[in-house]
Amino acid sequence: MRIDAIDFFYLSMPEITLEADGSQDALLVRLEAGGNVGWGECEASPLTSIAAYVAPRSHGVCQPVSASVLGEQLNSPTDIARISALVQRNSMDLLQAPHTYSGIEMAMWDALGKERGLPAWKMLGYSATHAKTPYASMLFGETPAETFEHVRAATARGFRAVKVGWGGFGEGTVAADAEHLAAARDALGRDGILLVDAGQIWVENTALALERLDALESQHVTWLEEPFLPDAYSAYSAFAERSPRVRLAGGEGAHNERMAINLIDYGKVGFVQIDCGRIGGLGAAKKVAEHAVASGVTYVNHTFTSHLALSASLQPFAGLAEHRICEYPVEPKQLAIDITVNTLDIDDNGTIHAPNAPGLGIEVNTAAIARYAVPVEIKVAGRTLFSSSTAL
Amino acid sequence: MRIDAIDFFYLSMPEITLEADGSQDALLVRLEAGGNVGWGECEASPLTSIAAYVAPRSHGVCQPVSASVLGEQLNSPTDIARISALVQRNSMDLLQAPHTYSGIEMAMWDALGKERGLPAWKMLGYSATHAKTPYASMLFGETPAETFEHVRAATARGFRAVKVGWGGFGEGTVAADAEHLAAARDALGRDGILLVDAGQIWVENTALALERLDALESQHVTWLEEPFLPDAYSAYSAFAERSPRVRLAGGEGAHNERMAINLIDYGKVGFVQIDCGRIGGLGAAKKVAEHAVASGVTYVNHTFTSHLALSASLQPFAGLAEHRICEYPVEPKQLAIDITVNTLDIDDNGTIHAPNAPGLGIEVNTAAIARYAVPVEIKVAGRTLFSSSTAL
Repeated sequence: MRIDAIDFFYLSMPEITLEADGSQDALLVRLEAGGNVGWGECEASPLTSIAAYVAPRSHGVCQPVSASVLGEQLNSPTDIARISALVQRNSMDLLQAPHTYSGIEMAMWDALGKERGLPAWKMLGYSATHAKTPYASMLFGETPAETFEHVRAATARGFRAVKVGWGGFGEGTVAADAEHLAAARDALGRDGILLVDAGQIWVENTALALERLDALESQHVTWLEEPFLPDAYSAYSAFAERSPRVRLAGGEGAHNERMAINLIDYGKVGFVQIDCGRIGGLGAAKKVAEHAVASGVTYVNHTFTSHLALSASLQPFAGLAEHRICEYPVEPKQLAIDITVNTLDIDDNGTIHAPNAPGLGIEVNTAAIARYAVPVEIKVAGRTLFSSSTAL
Repeated sequence: MRIDAIDFFYLSMPEITLEADGSQDALLVRLEAGGNVGWGECEASPLTSIAAYVAPRSHGVCQPVSASVLGEQLNSPTDIARISALVQRNSMDLLQAPHTYSGIEMAMWDALGKERGLPAWKMLGYSATHAKTPYASMLFGETPAETFEHVRAATARGFRAVKVGWGGFGEGTVAADAEHLAAARDALGRDGILLVDAGQIWVENTALALERLDALESQHVTWLEEPFLPDAYSAYSAFAERSPRVRLAGGEGAHNERMAINLIDYGKVGFVQIDCGRIGGLGAAKKVAEHAVASGVTYVNHTFTSHLALSASLQPFAGLAEHRICEYPVEPKQLAIDITVNTLDIDDNGTIHAPNAPGLGIEVNTAAIARYAVPVEIKVAGRTLFSSSTAL
């Protein structure tokens, strides 16, 4: 079948705050091929990603993403890999391209799966899915008492694994950070899995991260996530050498499979976290999963938005029984909830599964799209290159 | 002084072909601070880069570039570093941000230099400039005879160093590539410096590159540029281990200093090529230059467009006497020529210098801007976020 149309939908909450909460807006992609409709979601700046799709070309390897996808044949996973290589070549110098393409690639798997009656994980080569244990992801409180309450609320909902992050962690004193970690452990209990997300706060400074190692170890923290910039591999590996018990996690910033593979090979992380809405889609993520398996590193999804994004991000490691922990959007904004008709709910065993349904197995709520839609119009040299009104 | 205004100018040739020639369009940046006007140039997709400047924020670390620069104090190089760190933090999840910011950062050095009466290279810490030997950069011909003619034309203009690249090189047979290399060497003569640019053609496949090693060695090629994707470090290092004489070059794809430093540390290149219009400006490039010096690697600029971009890209290594070779736009499109009033001309010794003048030392031809201007209008939710007509 032929890729006949691709449309972008920029959705937003009425107000966007400065919280580190990526569920405040969304960029959905609708792809039409052979009478099938596939959906995807870019975890990226909506306006900038749309611009990277429609921009006039600058030269042979700075072409817009649209140049490599519209009109292409889509009949097999091989076609998706071929189109990914085309985008990589033709948009080599267009930095935003992988973020734009991520949602399109997702939508290809969804459309192809619907055509063939196969779930994406099966087309990716897995024969079965395995249960994943979701962890609750939340921000540190302003005080240790508040952190305690946040974590307690998650355990009350049945979560046995909790990640706390951002807030002021890493910016104040080591003692203050230690108190927050102790509060989180208290609330979680001795057997819970405690994860910490530093949100790149120490940039490239390994010493600042190592100052917190005692506190992290004494609270039995399983992973320390993103202490540094995503490609500061030497800072990562210097920490890893000193920390046999608290392993490093990272990878959400990867916008191609090599960045994540380099973080494994050179940064020596123990957990690699991939967002299919940024890395170039499911195909790129599956390559990272294969490398993680070969390297003895645990693959984890990165998902902070809708259940469409969640399903997409589960597919690349759905068949890996040993890679069990998964990120689960616990308190997304209403927009992210309203985007999908169905959701991936936590079962009585406290686990979730990738859907056993064609494509991504998620139905998009088109009425919600209309409700949250942000109209966009882009004109260049008198021509309208994008108008959301024509897509709706 | 305060950064009062930043304006973008999207310029284009009437027609944009699929050649790998980045001089077909341009994105200029005009910055006003304390009554001074500074200019910069992004080597990037103009529309997408403008979108990254004006986009509504998505969350705390996916803010548009404008959020971190407008209204900031600009009184010293320390301020520029501070603003660069702000952009890095606040636009962490906006992939296009470094390409947009590169032109702005350049314009800051230009404005600050005009305020202080100092050239950018002096503010970067150099006490003197050193002559650079420009090489002529050109595409392979369709036949070896055509390649011979191209290189001959460059030597006739006095160039003693020539780089040939792209075209069909690396896609056909090893024998065909060898004939092109022999033709280039014939035309250049025994003593000329021959450089080859593979344009990422072998993606990550070291074996395909190594198949050409005999031909590259027998024509005494000084460097093989970008055989692989810019972050395929293991492919780079695998080639480097096998090739003691033909050194690798790369780095133009770096959109922050770490990517270039990783290419040195993990990719084992012998030459690192930095485009100040992509890496985040002069400050990021200077860090790469320092790392190159410490690592015994030669720093080279990457410049294929205007003499504004050329001056900017010379500044970070202007004071390094041993890092002598430099890229020089030999046959840019008329647009790139018309952008500047003055140029960096090749002197009787066949060398060029960074200007000994305030800032970047290049005067922009505002009449040319009007002639090549591409009108852009971006509306989001009924508000006009960008309109080029108001900037002109």
